Amino acid sequence: MSGFVSFVSSGPGDPDLLTLKAVKRLEQAEAILFDDLSSGPILSHAHKDADLVGVGKRAGRPSPKQDHVSTLLVEYAQSGARVVRLKSGDGGIFGRLEEELLALRAAGIPYEIIPGVTAASAAAAAAGIPLTRRMTARRLQYITGHGITGALPEDLNMPALADPEATTVVYMGKRTFAELAEKLIAAGLPADTPALVAIGISTPDQDLKHATVGALPKYLNALETTAPILILYGPLADMDAFPDV
Amino acid sequence: MSGFVSFVSSGPGDPDLLTLKAVKRLEQAEAILFDDLSSGPILSHAHKDADLVGVGKRAGRPSPKQDHVSTLLVEYAQSGARVVRLKSGDGGIFGRLEEELLALRAAGIPYEIIPGVTAASAAAAAAGIPLTRRMTARRLQYITGHGITGALPEDLNMPALADPEATTVVYMGKRTFAELAEKLIAAGLPADTPALVAIGISTPDQDLKHATVGALPKYLNALETTAPILILYGPLADMDAFPDV
Repeated sequence: MSGFVSFVSSGPGDPDLLTLKAVKRLEQAEAILFDDLSSGPILSHAHKDADLVGVGKRAGRPSPKQDHVSTLLVEYAQSGARVVRLKSGDGGIFGRLEEELLALRAAGIPYEIIPGVTAASAAAAAAGIPLTRRMTARRLQYITGHGITGALPEDLNMPALADPEATTVVYMGKRTFAELAEKLIAAGLPADTPALVAIGISTPDQDLKHATVGALPKYLNALETTAPILILYGPLADMDAFPDV
Repeated sequence: MSGFVSFVSSGPGDPDLLTLKAVKRLEQAEAILFDDLSSGPILSHAHKDADLVGVGKRAGRPSPKQDHVSTLLVEYAQSGARVVRLKSGDGGIFGRLEEELLALRAAGIPYEIIPGVTAASAAAAAAGIPLTRRMTARRLQYITGHGITGALPEDLNMPALADPEATTVVYMGKRTFAELAEKLIAAGLPADTPALVAIGISTPDQDLKHATVGALPKYLNALETTAPILILYGPLADMDAFPDV
């Protein structure tokens, strides 16, 4: 008897940004394996008898090894359970989804993926701006500032990242943005390129700051928070609505 | 008496991919201005007395001018109504949101933006693959194949787009992909780079095809459909689950 795994994207944190489909899967699940960022009120949709299993990892805290999560997922499914693997944001974007998909395929367990609202969309919405602009920001790109070792990934495509006509969103970039900013400016991106810092987006701790690529590293270095941070830079639309760094 | 406008992202088409917040706004709206792609069952959440106003545009059909949509939006809000401006996918991504935001600001009308699931996330989820891959696709980028004149935008960043280590998603690219593919291959992207065509994603017409960048133009030229098309290319994860072009 084989179970079934739904990879459910929980959105950026606000439980109202769950999709109807995500809510249905949470209600029907017999076991829910969740990350730190997709816990709290989101789990209130779980059935009262469901197993709720935290497998989270956050920067700076010890975390379960990825292969342990995959093993647990396979074991729950092999018990015949309807399993939800809850991932924050959109699970397909920097969600380390592939490792878990491969483990399920190897074990012959069927699965589905429910897409969700990624943090970039929520951050721009909270700031009241679009991610693309018809004349000035016709390319949108997402990168991670946190490579496999925790450092800024090597072999960055600098012509792509230093492009003044793209909106760039850096996920998990707090610790490495100073290094990235230096490379961007060396590659020709003006230091006064607008930047937006989105802290704890769509959570009660949400905070938005307006800055520039050149000025942002100093602010980030002094910033003490455990909330997730997203950095946007590029030809961002008018951001008068929230304070400067 | 001033109204209020909620820009509500409707997701890619499946009404179950609406967020809870989007449903609440639809239920409370006195007027809903909607695009073609965010109509149908999505509008079933509207109040029975709400004004439902179609302002859609689809490739190849005459469409209301953008400034007409903005004027209509301002007029509805100035009547004091709670207005929802429904936009398909995530409204901040290739949704021409900025023109309408500017019209509201000029008229002093308050607004909010509700983010949603963009078509790229839904397409990858339907294909059973992630958009980013830990070792091989650490950058994700979205472009439009349909510039202001309908042609492929000029001044494309070819080092960004021909990068074999990024996942690229082309929105509205059916008519111009042949030209783009030629430029990509000329810029060094291998013609056998995996590609995915997602037709009518998350709708009853949904169809997925597996191809390569080099082989795709011929297929697209022969494809007769009015459904929206999304093209993904790059080091995509294994796509055995659906047929080749």
